[in-house]
Amino acid sequence: MRGAAIRRTSRDIRSDSMVDVLHAVLSAGETTRNEIARKTGLSAATVVTVAGELIDRGIIVETKTTAGQVGRPTAMLAINVERGRVVGLDVAETYVRGVMFDTALNPLVQIERAHDENLQDPDSIVEAIGAVLDDLLVQQGVGRDSVLGVGISLPGLIQEPGGVAVVVPNWEWRSVELEHLRERVGFPLVIDNPLKAMVAAELWLGRGRSASSMATVNLGTGVGAGIVLQGQVLRGATNSAGEWGHSLLVLDGRLCRCGRRGCVEAYIGVPGIQETLRELAPDHPLADVGRQRDFIMELAAAASDEGGDGAARETVNRTAYFLGSALADLVAIVNPEVITLTGWTTWALGDLLVPSAGRRMREQSPGHAGTSLDLEVSAVRGNPVASGIAMIALERSLVDAGLLTSRIPVAL
Amino acid sequence: MRGAAIRRTSRDIRSDSMVDVLHAVLSAGETTRNEIARKTGLSAATVVTVAGELIDRGIIVETKTTAGQVGRPTAMLAINVERGRVVGLDVAETYVRGVMFDTALNPLVQIERAHDENLQDPDSIVEAIGAVLDDLLVQQGVGRDSVLGVGISLPGLIQEPGGVAVVVPNWEWRSVELEHLRERVGFPLVIDNPLKAMVAAELWLGRGRSASSMATVNLGTGVGAGIVLQGQVLRGATNSAGEWGHSLLVLDGRLCRCGRRGCVEAYIGVPGIQETLRELAPDHPLADVGRQRDFIMELAAAASDEGGDGAARETVNRTAYFLGSALADLVAIVNPEVITLTGWTTWALGDLLVPSAGRRMREQSPGHAGTSLDLEVSAVRGNPVASGIAMIALERSLVDAGLLTSRIPVAL
Repeated sequence: MRGAAIRRTSRDIRSDSMVDVLHAVLSAGETTRNEIARKTGLSAATVVTVAGELIDRGIIVETKTTAGQVGRPTAMLAINVERGRVVGLDVAETYVRGVMFDTALNPLVQIERAHDENLQDPDSIVEAIGAVLDDLLVQQGVGRDSVLGVGISLPGLIQEPGGVAVVVPNWEWRSVELEHLRERVGFPLVIDNPLKAMVAAELWLGRGRSASSMATVNLGTGVGAGIVLQGQVLRGATNSAGEWGHSLLVLDGRLCRCGRRGCVEAYIGVPGIQETLRELAPDHPLADVGRQRDFIMELAAAASDEGGDGAARETVNRTAYFLGSALADLVAIVNPEVITLTGWTTWALGDLLVPSAGRRMREQSPGHAGTSLDLEVSAVRGNPVASGIAMIALERSLVDAGLLTSRIPVAL
Repeated sequence: MRGAAIRRTSRDIRSDSMVDVLHAVLSAGETTRNEIARKTGLSAATVVTVAGELIDRGIIVETKTTAGQVGRPTAMLAINVERGRVVGLDVAETYVRGVMFDTALNPLVQIERAHDENLQDPDSIVEAIGAVLDDLLVQQGVGRDSVLGVGISLPGLIQEPGGVAVVVPNWEWRSVELEHLRERVGFPLVIDNPLKAMVAAELWLGRGRSASSMATVNLGTGVGAGIVLQGQVLRGATNSAGEWGHSLLVLDGRLCRCGRRGCVEAYIGVPGIQETLRELAPDHPLADVGRQRDFIMELAAAASDEGGDGAARETVNRTAYFLGSALADLVAIVNPEVITLTGWTTWALGDLLVPSAGRRMREQSPGHAGTSLDLEVSAVRGNPVASGIAMIALERSLVDAGLLTSRIPVAL
């Protein structure tokens, strides 16, 4: 094999160690070389070598030296937050939300700009993205040369034989529009879809610290899952893995906004939860609340109240039943170690949903797959889509700097 | 990194190349070094090195030399079938089926022994397994030293923190029983569950030649899926990945034999298909056919007949509808490149089911995941569970010989 071209090289192995060390430093905030070795399973010698290279390249720094237990001083390591900035942009059908982060993924400033969901013109959306990015730079007062990279999460991003494309009801962007986007941004750019961004955040900043297989489920208007198997984000043949929100819950059931019937999303997406309430109590005052976020907040308040609102409580119970049933399908197929919940329905209703949804999930999981399976509200707060896509951009900047070899499969 | 202990080594890289070369030779039957390089994407130099080592170790042989197009002779390579024998045992709740193979996975002899499905005593099942193995050796007239390894597929094999266990309705085998089994067999042994064995067969002998992500769905009394992602069998946290047969098709639907309601298996497992017929035509003569295999054969014959049997045809149509709907859930979650169908319901009904189940699957798959997705009857015939587990045993023998580093995660 000596000298022959093979697809996985010793550079990849070195890169894997580097990712492990970065992961350990990033998740700990401040840590020591010994602690990194313990957490990653790498040898002490490897950690010393890798940390040395990351320090030489300005990626991590020694923050202070403390007296060790046996009197020998121990250096603390942390991410070098002075190295630059990274931007994560969460682009949805109705808004662009941008967050600027330091290199330890601490959010520094956030900007949101709404746009009309019937907007079909890619140029206007590209311009809205560009404007949010410009505003972030101005508000933080940072020069363009301190931005290491920009990540953009685009809904409906898929992989095609000819490259990537964005396909959502009102948008159909192919290479021309994506090239235009790249020019407008003018920074090293990665794009991916929100489920992949969200699970990248969980992988780097949340439960991925300790579980090698997991799913992160987003609950909002739409619902979906990001899946990590053996430490890698599952993408699938067309970057569409994790579209659990459009798997079947009820054969020939409710009409989903995707046009099919009985999808999970038609029951546990916010419009689905509202429909459940209407089925139970057509005249309930919450049945007509127009804004989805208001509906969810008010439902959470009404269901938490021990007093009178039986219909609100029953709506939450049925939603938990639907959620637990649908999660069990995810368990049956991929058998993860842990499932976390994220998204704004989770922030409002998670504590009410988790106990009974978790019970139903474990009961419905085949064999012993549910026995030691945890269902948890994600510890990653803020905007996990923006943090996740920024994390992917940061990873890409390390690849471009020659430190990592990980390929980011879907990116301009 | 030099000299430091890291988890993935250059030996692993060399092992990956070796697996690729073996895969190419095994699937081609006879092939050339150039053709292997073309199929695997390895460099010509790597193929020469790896093939040389495999020839030195007696794993492959040069079968003949033919004149090349430009007059230079080209050597043909094939698996060395004289190297030994490997045995695959498919152990189910009602039978033990054993097949002896040569090292190119050609079946040489098969033996089946039925046992009572209410049998609860592990010793009797271990003895039945041992007896089938002894009979295979006698019938083939091979000495014990020519057996390179034995693979046993056991239903309900799961991974637990303390090791592996077998948990099916009437069996609960822990380490004692498994140790007993190992002693009775007396050969290098691997065990795994049938879904993993089945997809290992598809990976080595079927569609895995050309697709890096795929699912293989077994249709019989029970149903389930083996899943391969990026060339690796998906096992999950407890070796329970692929239990798609017990994912939901109809919330609160038919009672499944697993005790839950609405599972895929309750609709497309053979008893489920029989129930569909009974719902359509309670007095149909096929509604009372006792033996499942007879029922499926007669249903296939009745539904193929252009003449009168509307209920049989409608039963097949509904089964295809259920199957396509349930496959779309697998697509939504893991987004494979191809799905193959196997198992005895497939051999009988596959040609009737595939066109409409495939159409329904593609329609129900979210986004573009279904666009270029194929649904096919598997090309792996015979007993894919026995071939697959024998293949895993063969792989293990190459690991034991120091040629491969791939770990077989679930094995005694």
